[in-house]
Amino acid sequence: MLTLYYAPNSCALASHIALEQVGAQYETVRVDFSRSEQREPEYLRINPKGRVPALVTKCGILTETPAILSFICQLFPAAELAPLDDAFALAQFNEFNSYLCSTVHVAHAHRMRGYRWVDDPTAIAAMQKKVPQTVGDCFQLIETEMFKGPWVMGARYTACDIYLFTLAQWLEGDGVDPERFPKIADHRRRMLQLPVVGKVIAAERGSA
Amino acid sequence: MLTLYYAPNSCALASHIALEQVGAQYETVRVDFSRSEQREPEYLRINPKGRVPALVTKCGILTETPAILSFICQLFPAAELAPLDDAFALAQFNEFNSYLCSTVHVAHAHRMRGYRWVDDPTAIAAMQKKVPQTVGDCFQLIETEMFKGPWVMGARYTACDIYLFTLAQWLEGDGVDPERFPKIADHRRRMLQLPVVGKVIAAERGSA
Repeated sequence: MLTLYYAPNSCALASHIALEQVGAQYETVRVDFSRSEQREPEYLRINPKGRVPALVTKCGILTETPAILSFICQLFPAAELAPLDDAFALAQFNEFNSYLCSTVHVAHAHRMRGYRWVDDPTAIAAMQKKVPQTVGDCFQLIETEMFKGPWVMGARYTACDIYLFTLAQWLEGDGVDPERFPKIADHRRRMLQLPVVGKVIAAERGSA
Repeated sequence: MLTLYYAPNSCALASHIALEQVGAQYETVRVDFSRSEQREPEYLRINPKGRVPALVTKCGILTETPAILSFICQLFPAAELAPLDDAFALAQFNEFNSYLCSTVHVAHAHRMRGYRWVDDPTAIAAMQKKVPQTVGDCFQLIETEMFKGPWVMGARYTACDIYLFTLAQWLEGDGVDPERFPKIADHRRRMLQLPVVGKVIAAERGSA
């Protein structure tokens, strides 16, 4: 049994969808950000970073979306969510997920989590102002340079699709029109039609 | 033959050391940030993100340090720079590198690259002011929660050590006293004594 700690509308959605997609036996625990539960001692014992996701496994606890996604792919190879048999394709898979966590998610985080990098409220407001541009630039680069189609890596559906979908869900909130990126917008509509995606979104909404 | 595009004092040092460590046949191309070569059309054809590192392989070009490190580890399994035979240990390896790229490197980047996230010069200065705290907090977490010793992952030296060393080289510049973190400071001294590390640092300095 795996246990996923998550918060609704967070990047933990990617790990949640991946667990559902591979048919894992798992349970979820909601961390209530509105009550700052992620900073409570009880949760910090699970994840000292005070973030989600965290995946409790029989071997220990894992954090960081790219690592959790890769672990799920490796634990359930029959689901074929990563090109485990091809070193270069796997490197491209890692490259894409690494870009999402280190650049795209970070650009987004400057809207709601500016206090991580600055104390001055005026500076936080200045950061928020630039978010539509920085997030938009990221998705433009994905649209024109990275997305092969019909899926992120081409013919094969992978965990990259799940992760991209998760971050694309934030576009409107970040002040970016999703229709600026026709391939990503179409991808998002197709992802939303997948039964596992609908099921996980409904489950997270139900708990909120 | 592999070709690494790098800039001195950048995170590309990690990929450079890893290539040397595994005994890869490779050449390096210096990207001159002082002349903004990373934003020239010639380099953007290599890496549209305008960043380093980029690794040109016979299969295509790879970017993002965690992806390049994992690829090198997989291409040269005899060097044993990643726990490729243990899914959970490999996930911990990915988790550590993911934290470095998405949180530690990002905290550091707010000192010199604040313009990525904000336009207002006052806000950029406010960001810079907080860098010693944010970078210090990251290394404190590594010191107390992640670093197993004598190497990052415990008994086994891995690419995580190379990547941690690379970012620890920035501590003084970020206004953080490295001696606050005895385990990481000792690790850095041991890394600096490795012949491959000395050789790569000398090569990057010689080209600067």
